[in-house]
Amino acid sequence: MFRFIAAPFWITLRGMRLDELAREIEAEVVGDGSVEVSAVNTLEAAQAGQVSFLSNPRYAKQLETTRASAVIVSPGTKPTAHVTLLRAADPYFAFAKAMERLHGHRKHPFQGVHPQAHVDPSANVGENTVVYPGAYVGPNTRVGRDCILYPNVTIYDGCVLGDRVIIQAGAVIGADGYGFATHGGVHHKIPQAGNVVIEDDVEIGANTCIDRGAIGSTVIGRGAKIDDLVMIGHSVKIGAGSLVVAQVGIAGSVTVGQYTTIAGQVGIAGHLTLGDKVTVAAKAGVISDIPDGATVMGMPAMPARHGRRVYTVFMQLPELLDRIKHLEQQVENLTMIGGDEGVEVV
Amino acid sequence: MFRFIAAPFWITLRGMRLDELAREIEAEVVGDGSVEVSAVNTLEAAQAGQVSFLSNPRYAKQLETTRASAVIVSPGTKPTAHVTLLRAADPYFAFAKAMERLHGHRKHPFQGVHPQAHVDPSANVGENTVVYPGAYVGPNTRVGRDCILYPNVTIYDGCVLGDRVIIQAGAVIGADGYGFATHGGVHHKIPQAGNVVIEDDVEIGANTCIDRGAIGSTVIGRGAKIDDLVMIGHSVKIGAGSLVVAQVGIAGSVTVGQYTTIAGQVGIAGHLTLGDKVTVAAKAGVISDIPDGATVMGMPAMPARHGRRVYTVFMQLPELLDRIKHLEQQVENLTMIGGDEGVEVV
Amino acid sequence: MFRFIAAPFWITLRGMRLDELAREIEAEVVGDGSVEVSAVNTLEAAQAGQVSFLSNPRYAKQLETTRASAVIVSPGTKPTAHVTLLRAADPYFAFAKAMERLHGHRKHPFQGVHPQAHVDPSANVGENTVVYPGAYVGPNTRVGRDCILYPNVTIYDGCVLGDRVIIQAGAVIGADGYGFATHGGVHHKIPQAGNVVIEDDVEIGANTCIDRGAIGSTVIGRGAKIDDLVMIGHSVKIGAGSLVVAQVGIAGSVTVGQYTTIAGQVGIAGHLTLGDKVTVAAKAGVISDIPDGATVMGMPAMPARHGRRVYTVFMQLPELLDRIKHLEQQVENLTMIGGDEGVEVV
Repeated sequence: MFRFIAAPFWITLRGMRLDELAREIEAEVVGDGSVEVSAVNTLEAAQAGQVSFLSNPRYAKQLETTRASAVIVSPGTKPTAHVTLLRAADPYFAFAKAMERLHGHRKHPFQGVHPQAHVDPSANVGENTVVYPGAYVGPNTRVGRDCILYPNVTIYDGCVLGDRVIIQAGAVIGADGYGFATHGGVHHKIPQAGNVVIEDDVEIGANTCIDRGAIGSTVIGRGAKIDDLVMIGHSVKIGAGSLVVAQVGIAGSVTVGQYTTIAGQVGIAGHLTLGDKVTVAAKAGVISDIPDGATVMGMPAMPARHGRRVYTVFMQLPELLDRIKHLEQQVENLTMIGGDEGVEVV
Repeated sequence: MFRFIAAPFWITLRGMRLDELAREIEAEVVGDGSVEVSAVNTLEAAQAGQVSFLSNPRYAKQLETTRASAVIVSPGTKPTAHVTLLRAADPYFAFAKAMERLHGHRKHPFQGVHPQAHVDPSANVGENTVVYPGAYVGPNTRVGRDCILYPNVTIYDGCVLGDRVIIQAGAVIGADGYGFATHGGVHHKIPQAGNVVIEDDVEIGANTCIDRGAIGSTVIGRGAKIDDLVMIGHSVKIGAGSLVVAQVGIAGSVTVGQYTTIAGQVGIAGHLTLGDKVTVAAKAGVISDIPDGATVMGMPAMPARHGRRVYTVFMQLPELLDRIKHLEQQVENLTMIGGDEGVEVV
Repeated sequence: MFRFIAAPFWITLRGMRLDELAREIEAEVVGDGSVEVSAVNTLEAAQAGQVSFLSNPRYAKQLETTRASAVIVSPGTKPTAHVTLLRAADPYFAFAKAMERLHGHRKHPFQGVHPQAHVDPSANVGENTVVYPGAYVGPNTRVGRDCILYPNVTIYDGCVLGDRVIIQAGAVIGADGYGFATHGGVHHKIPQAGNVVIEDDVEIGANTCIDRGAIGSTVIGRGAKIDDLVMIGHSVKIGAGSLVVAQVGIAGSVTVGQYTTIAGQVGIAGHLTLGDKVTVAAKAGVISDIPDGATVMGMPAMPARHGRRVYTVFMQLPELLDRIKHLEQQVENLTMIGGDEGVEVV
């Protein structure tokens, strides 16, 4: 199954005419389409022969100074004499396609399971899946087709990975969840009898940990993308298409809906339910269920509209204290000249 | 030392009579004890032939709908015609024992040190300890009996692990602590001459890092359980039976007492002392010592009773600001009609 | 290239006269310089024949009780009959040199690339660099001289490491950044065509992840020291001499200046710029640029002077609420006896 791939195995930049690229990324050329391009680069760093990308209208001025041969922009962008524009309905997606066309995805230096990887004889690894040195696939685990297990990935026994799953280096799939029954001063380990199921088209970041279910499966839904150093506890379910950014921690038995975004360093307490299309802002601490479509922020997590007001006042707390002190002084003065202290006089 | 274990090596469900199981987990059968059971499952997912567990009286209604053959409950639970009850004094512990009896702990596909692991010739690995592929045990390190080092675990030189220690995949024990002396604009590395001592019955989670002492040992006390992606700095001492949940960071030279619980994503500043039976709530930032038995929360960490009030008011800050504005308006009105502005008039 | 080093390969304590040590660490002996010393230890644990270190004047009393043969102190420290002093202009640096002289840095049990490591044939590993078992160096990656790659480190393809770089176990350098273009409900992976450049004298902590640039390089500047479990996103630039403490998360395209310190568990949002000599306090959440020399704290990060006041009031919020309630009561009383309700009467 293992086959070493002789050089050249690495990325070669493949030059092409700009109008040909435009056709492939579904963009409209405004300017000279005959120029040859061979790479994508930032507006600042791009050279002649390179394509760039205007991600934010704020930076539109850079269109006048970039040395790029062409810039991918949104449909409304005005033509400029300085540089050829590639107008695209979804410019970020057009940029992604240009990256793929000109740079391509990683070419692996071998095919199949590397001899310095370890795949248990009872495990099953699908066709065209690449298993790098130091990766481990445990007993009875099933890995689909066209997957990539990067170096030093560990997949414990009995897990199931779909097709086109990418696991970056050092990630640990299916370690025992944190389950102990404390009795007589001893924390007795509860067998973690479940597994992890990772559906098709999921990507898992470097050194991320996804613990196996105590009973049943921890599930990462189709097309979800998990960043580096994320902790996903036992029996968690992540819905299809959800995004979990770096260093997020999700405690056991949480259910996350579809197309939900959880930003960096968020913590989610156990047994909660987050709906579909929820957004959780970075560093938030979620301690209650969140309905579909809500955006929350803060610690503890609050609806974002409220949370923004809370944090605005929070940052003015010293001034607030001063205002209270001033009020107290005023009220004391008022009281002295006929206020509540003077009630009996009246 | 290495021996491959031929199939079947994996978990076989071992069916048994319910009354026999009840005897083993020290529960009282309320209902039909003659039924055969072979697995544990959640109340929702359980089928006939499976035992379930009522963890929370809130879910007692599910006793009427579960398809489980029996449910482990607390002693006061009323009998129901729908399902056999297994009343246990400590239901969670009974559940753990049922898991162990019916599912068992992981059976390893081999014994001893796997040939794809690396144990330094000067290291000592105890009897019946399993070292998975990709694990590394450095020079002069001593690992006790009945331990498990999962794939890609790294134990640096000179460390000491007791008996029945479990290290989940990717954990790093004994890396150099973060110690530099800055002089003349250069951060000079200070040799980290200590080690890590992990006492008996400790479990360390996946990709957790426990740095070696700069001088002396970083110590994880007997029976402590550390979750995934935890960072424990150099020369930290964790007392026996303490629980450290995922993504906690403990800076250098901190001392944590016995049976203390540190919840997820907590940070503890260097050189502090936490007492015995302390509880630190999730995401708290500890910046001062904590006495025995205290519960703290928040950033910065406060006694929980106070902290709960602080966070309650915090979430009402916009309303508080409105009340202050209203007071200011009222006081201005009062002042205009004879208040402190009018003092001189009087 | 690989050569096993026969015993004794490990640290032997090398005793020396105190006055000789003093000369090497540039300290002045106040007391008996003829005693033999062989190790460094803490004030509490030190025995005769050991040198200790007074890091904090608060602990000066321990000079009277320590059993150490000598203690490294700052220049102003008064002589004591109890113990010989080693006065040094920079005591912490003198301590570091004493550690290096008496304990030394780790001696590796082999030289070169260990056979259980994997270095791609197209990669280049410099002279005197040690690559431990389980480490992986990808295609076209260049590692300088005198580097150490500890067990289970992964360096992806195309990365560049300078000289004297130390990568602790399990760290992942050059994994794909978190880059997806969402189109038609699908998160399309954007090729991460950049790399990671780690300059000379950098140390990277255990299980830290440094993602490769999407375009161009993620750069860790010369002499920077990164702790364990840190997440550095794609295209981040860390300036020379900066310190990044454990569990920090830095989102994509952030630029950090030189000699900046980022304390534990900080999060920094994408595309921001932090200046030189900035200090970010632990657990802060940085959501805007930070100028040179500033110290910030809190969530969201504020200038420390302001932040300290904010958090002081924050912790008094329940009392603040009481004061507001009291004011409301007073104002209501004032109003009733002739306040704003009575305006029309007047």
